[in-house]
Amino acid sequence: MKQYIAENQDRFLNELFELLRIPSVSSQSAHKDDMVTCANKLVELLLAAGADSAQVYPTKGHPVVFGEKRFDPSRPTILVYGHYDVQPVDPIELWKSNPYEPEIRDGAIYARGANDDKGQLFMHVKAFEYLVKKGLVNHNIKFILEGEEEIGSPSLAEWAKEHKDLLACDIMLVSDTTMISEKVPSINCGMRGLAYVEVEVTGPNKDLHSGHYGGAVVNPINALCKMIDQLIDDKGHITIKGFYDDVVELSAEDRAMLARAPFDEKEYKEFLDIDAVSGEEGYSTMERTGIRPCLDVNGIWGGFIGEGSKTVLPSVAHAKISMRLVPNQDCNKIAKLFEEHFMSIAPAGVRVKVTPHHGGNGFLIPISSPAYKAAAKAMEEVYGIEPVPSRGGGSIPILADMQQILQADPLLMGFGLERDTIHSPNESYLLSQLWRGMESIALFYKYFDK
Amino acid sequence: MKQYIAENQDRFLNELFELLRIPSVSSQSAHKDDMVTCANKLVELLLAAGADSAQVYPTKGHPVVFGEKRFDPSRPTILVYGHYDVQPVDPIELWKSNPYEPEIRDGAIYARGANDDKGQLFMHVKAFEYLVKKGLVNHNIKFILEGEEEIGSPSLAEWAKEHKDLLACDIMLVSDTTMISEKVPSINCGMRGLAYVEVEVTGPNKDLHSGHYGGAVVNPINALCKMIDQLIDDKGHITIKGFYDDVVELSAEDRAMLARAPFDEKEYKEFLDIDAVSGEEGYSTMERTGIRPCLDVNGIWGGFIGEGSKTVLPSVAHAKISMRLVPNQDCNKIAKLFEEHFMSIAPAGVRVKVTPHHGGNGFLIPISSPAYKAAAKAMEEVYGIEPVPSRGGGSIPILADMQQILQADPLLMGFGLERDTIHSPNESYLLSQLWRGMESIALFYKYFDK
Repeated sequence: MKQYIAENQDRFLNELFELLRIPSVSSQSAHKDDMVTCANKLVELLLAAGADSAQVYPTKGHPVVFGEKRFDPSRPTILVYGHYDVQPVDPIELWKSNPYEPEIRDGAIYARGANDDKGQLFMHVKAFEYLVKKGLVNHNIKFILEGEEEIGSPSLAEWAKEHKDLLACDIMLVSDTTMISEKVPSINCGMRGLAYVEVEVTGPNKDLHSGHYGGAVVNPINALCKMIDQLIDDKGHITIKGFYDDVVELSAEDRAMLARAPFDEKEYKEFLDIDAVSGEEGYSTMERTGIRPCLDVNGIWGGFIGEGSKTVLPSVAHAKISMRLVPNQDCNKIAKLFEEHFMSIAPAGVRVKVTPHHGGNGFLIPISSPAYKAAAKAMEEVYGIEPVPSRGGGSIPILADMQQILQADPLLMGFGLERDTIHSPNESYLLSQLWRGMESIALFYKYFDK
Repeated sequence: MKQYIAENQDRFLNELFELLRIPSVSSQSAHKDDMVTCANKLVELLLAAGADSAQVYPTKGHPVVFGEKRFDPSRPTILVYGHYDVQPVDPIELWKSNPYEPEIRDGAIYARGANDDKGQLFMHVKAFEYLVKKGLVNHNIKFILEGEEEIGSPSLAEWAKEHKDLLACDIMLVSDTTMISEKVPSINCGMRGLAYVEVEVTGPNKDLHSGHYGGAVVNPINALCKMIDQLIDDKGHITIKGFYDDVVELSAEDRAMLARAPFDEKEYKEFLDIDAVSGEEGYSTMERTGIRPCLDVNGIWGGFIGEGSKTVLPSVAHAKISMRLVPNQDCNKIAKLFEEHFMSIAPAGVRVKVTPHHGGNGFLIPISSPAYKAAAKAMEEVYGIEPVPSRGGGSIPILADMQQILQADPLLMGFGLERDTIHSPNESYLLSQLWRGMESIALFYKYFDK
């Protein structure tokens, strides 16, 4: 594959850049048409790469792309999952270059989606192209590329149920995660789930002059802050009643295995420019993000937020709050527990509304599976180092659903790096990872059998 | 004056509407030119009303307007204070009509500034016009109209020091406050001061993916909420060290006098649509807003606040926080105490910046003064009821400064009503109050002597 990449490098980058130029932001209705444009572009790429068929399928939300090449029904079938939708680009003013006009700087592509997930799914399309063109594969290979991952995949599970036969596979292959570092390749063997809610706290029925009413009327921003503060105690435990009921404590052995992954707290703090890490008492940083649930406010707003000052006691305050869950916690149950708890801690003088956004459950992948072993062998050959198993802190909720619908395990070969700052301004993807990812994927097919 | 109003009503409204159409928002630099337009319009109105002279004076910020008519140096001199700047109109979508296109509905003028303070200062200009045209006055009357009240009058005090002789007066007459109700006219005999700060809490140096980092890195929004929550304890006391040191407790007698003002808690709650009032333990609602200091978050923002969901652990969170002060508390000292305290409660893992906005001290006005007595007599004649003394919760910080510079007490004859919702969408001013305010002001000159 190295040779093939060298010969086709410029074309590959042109094709990827075309994908990245499409502002396929799934959460913003203004980009509805861009989603369709992006889906059509992927069909084009799959057909050009050698798929027997590929097409755009409508769903209740944004469309999915499905394409495949069948060789031999007796051979294993791999379903490649990816998503072509991206996160919003706000705060846009912090981008050093246009998020929709990819730019190569210091060996990395800078653009929204450069890594997550356009860059990573593109590696699969090109590894597929190489294998087909060179006659090096006889697995059956399918692609399912969705446009709603960043908003919690509200349509795919239903569509997958209706197209179970089309999607039937032995394993799902996914590149939508990170590895520890270029020097420490790793394979994700578990991910967290997610429950995401939006809350609204209303005090008086109109904005008030804070001089005339301040001190006597409950200020909904102060109330919201108090309620949020109460959600986590001094030991970093989430206080929602029943929140930890389904959390399985890991054995000392499992914790020791995960602790093998190298972690340098000093480097971590320097990378983030923080003077201290923090979190649940009794757990390491890697455990706090890998095997423990957590709660974060993702957004908050209320009152006067413009230039200057305004002495207003506002009518309403809002926050977006999400909880990362561990396997065995049910995201719908947790969203319900949150709502009950949050309502119960509202002080007199305000009314509270909780609206659930998307959610999904976490999952675990057996390290002993043939697919995990093939991936490990492929990556060791490319990186020269045996990859370590790790637990991802992020969530791809749809994979837990798909695992159940298709009865096939997902394998997470992610080539992203922390430095890529996905979801943030200046998202990037190292060219070296793009090329090595393609090589690893191509080798995976060489080593994988049922 | 009743007769004169009846004859000139249409012209009066046209003139006021012209003033209200000018978007003179002092806190937004985009409106810089509108401030000058508005100042010039006021000069025009003062000269037309009969001032000997009136002109726009530049300051370091927005210009002030000064105009006067001198009769007899031996007679009392009254300095009318008002402000022509207005609050921003956000949230604009809640306005039922254009805030800069005044509309009369159900006997009230709806527009930004209809009451605060264009509508109220206009009453003084027209009462002045009437008195001059009819030869009914021989007080010396001066007007000082500033354009920075809503941003804390950063320039007027310095300008006043430089123009002390020009402004010299026996009393300052101000209509920039409310009365209890049309059936319970009242005169403000004290106002609260104000300390206003903006805070910034920074965690990691970039927005992070909340899945990858959530649980291990301090989230600045959660930290800000915790810090804000800690500013007020369960009894409604502000926890800032030294905050109450200079607060003078009122005597039982004083509290009893203020309690004479009627207050219907049921009506109050219905007006605001809240199920409970709240505040500092041991004080009534009127005391909480009139004679006790308080702390309110006026605005908060951080993270993703757009449509949909984004799983971000943000780099930074902000809030605008103001404290209402009582007479004898020094606003600069309080701002300093706030900063020290707020820095001291910051958790490890975040950096905090506190930026002071404007501030001002509170003040008290002697009820036994000839000016208070004249105002009370005038209002009793117009409303048929003796006005009650009240304490205002709002702040006109500049008046405390002017009192000191000019050695003259301010008299607050305010004709606003709670229903006017100043600083909020759909600010209004009752026509009946506009006309009765003019009458009361005209009568004040009849009864006032040194």
